[in-house]
Amino acid sequence: MQQLPTFQQLVRQLQKVPFLASKNVYRVASFLLDADQKFIENFCKLIFDARARVKHCQICFNWAEGEALCSLCSHPKRDRSRICVVETWHDLCALERAEQYTGVYHILGGSLSPLEGRGPEQLQIESLIKRVDETVKEIILATNPTPEGETTANFIASRLASKQIVISRLASGMPTGSSLEYLDRITISKALMGRRPF
Amino acid sequence: MQQLPTFQQLVRQLQKVPFLASKNVYRVASFLLDADQKFIENFCKLIFDARARVKHCQICFNWAEGEALCSLCSHPKRDRSRICVVETWHDLCALERAEQYTGVYHILGGSLSPLEGRGPEQLQIESLIKRVDETVKEIILATNPTPEGETTANFIASRLASKQIVISRLASGMPTGSSLEYLDRITISKALMGRRPF
Repeated sequence: MQQLPTFQQLVRQLQKVPFLASKNVYRVASFLLDADQKFIENFCKLIFDARARVKHCQICFNWAEGEALCSLCSHPKRDRSRICVVETWHDLCALERAEQYTGVYHILGGSLSPLEGRGPEQLQIESLIKRVDETVKEIILATNPTPEGETTANFIASRLASKQIVISRLASGMPTGSSLEYLDRITISKALMGRRPF
Repeated sequence: MQQLPTFQQLVRQLQKVPFLASKNVYRVASFLLDADQKFIENFCKLIFDARARVKHCQICFNWAEGEALCSLCSHPKRDRSRICVVETWHDLCALERAEQYTGVYHILGGSLSPLEGRGPEQLQIESLIKRVDETVKEIILATNPTPEGETTANFIASRLASKQIVISRLASGMPTGSSLEYLDRITISKALMGRRPF
């Protein structure tokens, strides 16, 4: 193979960006080499601009632009007595797309995973416990229905056990539009266990 | 949805990078916002470094680092009397991985595609014609077996018709490890037409 040390260095740097580490990094690297100087200058400037302006919300750790609080935490109509706890910003966006929930959020920044070295101190769990005062009535644990997500939900529930609040969990069951034939047995078991009067 | 203009601008910039324009751009944008300042500085520095050092080879348009000629064009053992014409650098890499070819290359930079606005002047065709002198014995047209690749091969062959050289094309047929049952009928037709004495 050819000796292109600087090119390889750029590729290795691109491989450190998650969700980009694929066969495509060589194509991305070639594109970045061939692109207009202006495009590249703008590309890097935008990264620095965004880093300077977009910060984590001081309450819920959602992205906030130019302000200390995000648009949801500072929204006058959001119900601050209900906090929905999610793993990531992407999960928050998914819940917002459903246009059903009117409370506020708390982004943990991931789930507990001893295998990947993520303990409670790596996540925004302490800040959640501190945030829960007498004005909060319900905590919805919306971590994903994965082993890590379940562990995280259990851990947070145990930490909140002494407080006088409702702790709930998103329903597990059959997704809309699915078919029993193609669902895994754990999903079917959970749908059976969680069955409701018709 | 939230109002995050600078964040959206970064996402739109990322979407301009081909092979990155997917659902993942939001994840990449989040990563770039959360990453170490040092990582980001290094990331941008490497792009500029690579652009300053890695240029197209003046003969074959392969990537060349620090020199005017690429490592293949300046290699003492490569046979300069055979030129293999490919569409992209990725195609050159694929041929090099086969460790079969010992000649040199010519990268066109794509294929003729009137629909996408790529005519002969957008590709390195004129430079190829100029490059073919009496020392060149064979041109291997290794453009892809797609309509665009075939058109490009035909166009180049017609431009070279007046020269006293062998013009060849990579064989079309059944890929190794494939099975007749799953191959498309055009591939099977070409394999039949190109059949060779056993």
